[in-house]
Amino acid sequence: MAVNVALLGAGRIGKVHAKAVSMSEGATVVAVADAFEEAANALAQAYGARVSSIDEIAAASDVDAVIICTPTDTHADLIEQFVKAGKAVFCEKPIDLSLERVKSCLKTVEDLDGTLMLGFNRRFDPHFRAVKEAIEAGRIGDVESVHITSRDPGAPPPAYIQSSGGIFRDMTIHDFDMARFLLGEEVTSVFATASVLVDPEIGKLGDYDSAMVVLTTASGKQCAISNSRRATYGYDQRIEVHGSKGVVSAENQRPVSIEVATAEGYTRPPLHDFFMTRYTEAYAAEITTFVEAINQGQAPQPSGEDGLKALALAEAAVKSVAERRAIGMDEI
Amino acid sequence: MAVNVALLGAGRIGKVHAKAVSMSEGATVVAVADAFEEAANALAQAYGARVSSIDEIAAASDVDAVIICTPTDTHADLIEQFVKAGKAVFCEKPIDLSLERVKSCLKTVEDLDGTLMLGFNRRFDPHFRAVKEAIEAGRIGDVESVHITSRDPGAPPPAYIQSSGGIFRDMTIHDFDMARFLLGEEVTSVFATASVLVDPEIGKLGDYDSAMVVLTTASGKQCAISNSRRATYGYDQRIEVHGSKGVVSAENQRPVSIEVATAEGYTRPPLHDFFMTRYTEAYAAEITTFVEAINQGQAPQPSGEDGLKALALAEAAVKSVAERRAIGMDEI
Amino acid sequence: MAVNVALLGAGRIGKVHAKAVSMSEGATVVAVADAFEEAANALAQAYGARVSSIDEIAAASDVDAVIICTPTDTHADLIEQFVKAGKAVFCEKPIDLSLERVKSCLKTVEDLDGTLMLGFNRRFDPHFRAVKEAIEAGRIGDVESVHITSRDPGAPPPAYIQSSGGIFRDMTIHDFDMARFLLGEEVTSVFATASVLVDPEIGKLGDYDSAMVVLTTASGKQCAISNSRRATYGYDQRIEVHGSKGVVSAENQRPVSIEVATAEGYTRPPLHDFFMTRYTEAYAAEITTFVEAINQGQAPQPSGEDGLKALALAEAAVKSVAERRAIGMDEI
Amino acid sequence: MAVNVALLGAGRIGKVHAKAVSMSEGATVVAVADAFEEAANALAQAYGARVSSIDEIAAASDVDAVIICTPTDTHADLIEQFVKAGKAVFCEKPIDLSLERVKSCLKTVEDLDGTLMLGFNRRFDPHFRAVKEAIEAGRIGDVESVHITSRDPGAPPPAYIQSSGGIFRDMTIHDFDMARFLLGEEVTSVFATASVLVDPEIGKLGDYDSAMVVLTTASGKQCAISNSRRATYGYDQRIEVHGSKGVVSAENQRPVSIEVATAEGYTRPPLHDFFMTRYTEAYAAEITTFVEAINQGQAPQPSGEDGLKALALAEAAVKSVAERRAIGMDEI
Repeated sequence: MAVNVALLGAGRIGKVHAKAVSMSEGATVVAVADAFEEAANALAQAYGARVSSIDEIAAASDVDAVIICTPTDTHADLIEQFVKAGKAVFCEKPIDLSLERVKSCLKTVEDLDGTLMLGFNRRFDPHFRAVKEAIEAGRIGDVESVHITSRDPGAPPPAYIQSSGGIFRDMTIHDFDMARFLLGEEVTSVFATASVLVDPEIGKLGDYDSAMVVLTTASGKQCAISNSRRATYGYDQRIEVHGSKGVVSAENQRPVSIEVATAEGYTRPPLHDFFMTRYTEAYAAEITTFVEAINQGQAPQPSGEDGLKALALAEAAVKSVAERRAIGMDEI
Repeated sequence: MAVNVALLGAGRIGKVHAKAVSMSEGATVVAVADAFEEAANALAQAYGARVSSIDEIAAASDVDAVIICTPTDTHADLIEQFVKAGKAVFCEKPIDLSLERVKSCLKTVEDLDGTLMLGFNRRFDPHFRAVKEAIEAGRIGDVESVHITSRDPGAPPPAYIQSSGGIFRDMTIHDFDMARFLLGEEVTSVFATASVLVDPEIGKLGDYDSAMVVLTTASGKQCAISNSRRATYGYDQRIEVHGSKGVVSAENQRPVSIEVATAEGYTRPPLHDFFMTRYTEAYAAEITTFVEAINQGQAPQPSGEDGLKALALAEAAVKSVAERRAIGMDEI
Repeated sequence: MAVNVALLGAGRIGKVHAKAVSMSEGATVVAVADAFEEAANALAQAYGARVSSIDEIAAASDVDAVIICTPTDTHADLIEQFVKAGKAVFCEKPIDLSLERVKSCLKTVEDLDGTLMLGFNRRFDPHFRAVKEAIEAGRIGDVESVHITSRDPGAPPPAYIQSSGGIFRDMTIHDFDMARFLLGEEVTSVFATASVLVDPEIGKLGDYDSAMVVLTTASGKQCAISNSRRATYGYDQRIEVHGSKGVVSAENQRPVSIEVATAEGYTRPPLHDFFMTRYTEAYAAEITTFVEAINQGQAPQPSGEDGLKALALAEAAVKSVAERRAIGMDEI
Repeated sequence: MAVNVALLGAGRIGKVHAKAVSMSEGATVVAVADAFEEAANALAQAYGARVSSIDEIAAASDVDAVIICTPTDTHADLIEQFVKAGKAVFCEKPIDLSLERVKSCLKTVEDLDGTLMLGFNRRFDPHFRAVKEAIEAGRIGDVESVHITSRDPGAPPPAYIQSSGGIFRDMTIHDFDMARFLLGEEVTSVFATASVLVDPEIGKLGDYDSAMVVLTTASGKQCAISNSRRATYGYDQRIEVHGSKGVVSAENQRPVSIEVATAEGYTRPPLHDFFMTRYTEAYAAEITTFVEAINQGQAPQPSGEDGLKALALAEAAVKSVAERRAIGMDEI
């Protein structure tokens, strides 16, 4: 069976997903919707799809699944609309910046037994995936601690910051999901500290650009997350997981891996400087996973529940910074 | 202008090139020819192309260019046929195993002012390309020596060896081209030594599986090539270029770059174990280059002449092993 | 001027310091004291020194300086005795496990204008020192965060744990000193979390074997420390400092740096598995620094004050684990 | 039994060996001889030894062994004199630049059943030794090829070149010994090419500064050696040994191993820039081995025969460059 997919949103990430669909076996882009008509036309034409409105797509009998890449504040409504319309839904994170709204949305999905996959792309990065597989293969024994370094090449513009929900909901949320993915046990407590070291403008907007988070679980496992909105040397994305028998780590990635040695020393090029080139393979793999889950009638992972839990951890981090104490997840 | 491309040969490498064409902007696969009908059908269908015979393609007015991925002994004839038919030609290496036949073929191409690009894919590997760019940017000063390590994961079957022309014409030829590409000066002398250490069957066929080659140029530049038909740890492809100001090197590539540390030590996974996964990007980039050259009316590189020169170096290596002395290129 | 040094304590670390003295230009071991006579004799003989009692050494006119490597609970008394006797004092960390006792001891040193250097050996490791120098040279701009990984190869025996003062005063204290050394700004707040994952016996003694600490400064700089009493792959000692212009890091050290690649992957040997082989150069360099400071009439670093501040951070960490909140240093 | 050692030659390398003797258990420096009195006095004083003449040392009943670090042209005579005097002899390489003189010297040593160890220090480098041990442990299966990169930080002064015997006898000789050490089979054929790329002055003296050598054995094993008198990034000393089951390699060494990452990339410091800091541990270990062999009444390795064979390979390399062909070792 071929899965017919409609793209909601024809922006930067929409294009990435459209390409991923076109390269997945048994999936086709059939329709594209975007408020910005020119973008919709361009994307539709590239893949031989039609331009449609949101409502037309919801009503279309030839659409099996939708990929939601519209602005965050539309996600929850669209998820509900398309689950009601019987479509399988892939939605970019987050579902919403409000925990309450996420909960009500997921209730709807659950009541309708809908199919919802959330776009935590990093779970599909081949290197991080290999870390997970090494853990599952028992190569490091029982997991004891997870260390996540996640630093953006540069700060986003103020306009983005304003509607982002803040560093924990916007940036650390990926790390929260990765922490849950790798710890293998739910987080029970969150401590976070944050400051403004990169750009005072970010501080004026009430947000932070530098953060450290410590998560703990009931059995005493720990996770440290280190975030910054600045990394001059590229997109710094490292993971290290310690266990009773050893440690597994995933190194940073760079576009080319040459080394030049001169009297000044040995120099390798900077890392990828953009999340889309860093996570090219991950974006493709997550869409392939979505398509396969639909074809096999299985619930795709990561789920809406995963999105909810990561957002709750972000909520706890915000509270922790304000109260300068560890926040129990039972308080959220 | 869109370049309409026909594939001659729908095997393993044909599929790779077809995909590369389909992903190149301004290029389309329009026809596929293969003696094995099923293969031709499958490939044609995947890209919405028609199945044609060789002669139909030569005569087709809607075909601008052909990609030749048929067996080696058909290359020279096909190049001549399609250059005469006015098509731009991309041909897998080698043009032929006989130096004389290559020369006569290139004479035909030259007389007809034909367009011919040879598939030395490694020139398009992003890492090796970055080595070249570092040299051209003057980062290591004047090139003094080139060191090429090129070891296959495993030996090919006897049947392949028999029609391969021997290790120097089949395997080292890529390294000869890379040496020329990086030395920036023509090779004047070749010394080679070879032995059978991997598989006695290869020796029975009169070939070798382990070789070392030293090339020199008129100004005293040197190049060392190390070859083996066995590398248990994967496809070992390294380059190191020394110059008056320093050295630039390209490391090996692996599918995933995690590291596991236990009481036994620190372990990273093996390398790519297949040339097609190792050189995925290179295969795509060489076809893109071919298409761009056609669109811009320029002569594509590497040329037929590059193929001829690499083959002549292989010829010299064979002679050197037999005579246990350095062979001047003026002797070939 | 030659500095005549007496060793108080002829155990494991005493031997290391005696050798360092003998290899420092302008310094000689003249006397050794140890409650265990055989040990004193052996060490004295090896360096042509005499065996003396503590009080004899304090009274000896030919002794310029003492190196204290006796059990922790004797440190403060010995420091006071020898400062009063007019000797320059080098003392292994910590001065005492009680913050009050350390304060009163340092008061005595200060009142007498005594010379006291504390044995935070890691400041003298050539790799960590190079990190410090890179920071001071402005290579990473303004320091924003420090990341310290400090994991012991194995847990000490219960008897050691019992008199150690707990993981923060015994193990993390080195990291607290390194954090202060690299942050370049005093720590104002400490958050710590700790658990027992390695050895339940440690838990029964009221101590922890796994900890994470987050330090912050007034200007918003952050430091993360990760500790474990277990690292199967060796003595894991890494530092990473991020600044406005980049990051500088010091890698782990191993006795031999070969790599073996087979079908199973690429394997390097484990790290040093003992602090004395890992920090060989650091131990020698700290004693050389002590001798030079005496010869040049300068106050040696790290000072007693540095010892006090690191201990105060340990105190805050203990309190933070108990109260599950960030502890302001003004509370200690 | 303590071994009493006399130093013949109190220059740079003499100092290194004297220190190594003083740090070896069961060995003492008792006498020093040097034509330059001041040097002899300084070294003798540092280790509580006496200054003596060569002949006094040969006659001294309290001298068990001598370490010869005088100029090359005195080596053979001194070896003979001291073997005749019944002393164990450690001699810096080479025994002599003339193959005939070496042979006659070794004949004398053999006839007198003398003890002679030759200073091929690299065999004692812990990293290269670990390579050897990995081979002996069967980790890479049967050895198939050895790759030696050996590049000096800078060219020696013309005066040194003049009396050096040329690049193969002076510099490559270390690599020839290492090749024999690692191949585990005698070399039967040598091909070499050499040129002047670094310093024209070296060419005017009839020597070369850049060389490549290929060695082969009867069973078809191969070894490639790459030499240059220039390496801007430090003392480049790498070894790679391929076998039927895998490869083992020893990386370069640097004084400090930090890494700084900025917008320009990731930079590590240059390598050691001096053979004495690069091979500090090797120099100490070879003297310890010499002392232990004497104490245990065993013949020390590497032997005079090892020195002879390395020199013969150098001779063959010189001939190969001149005749542009592989030289059989039966021709030398």
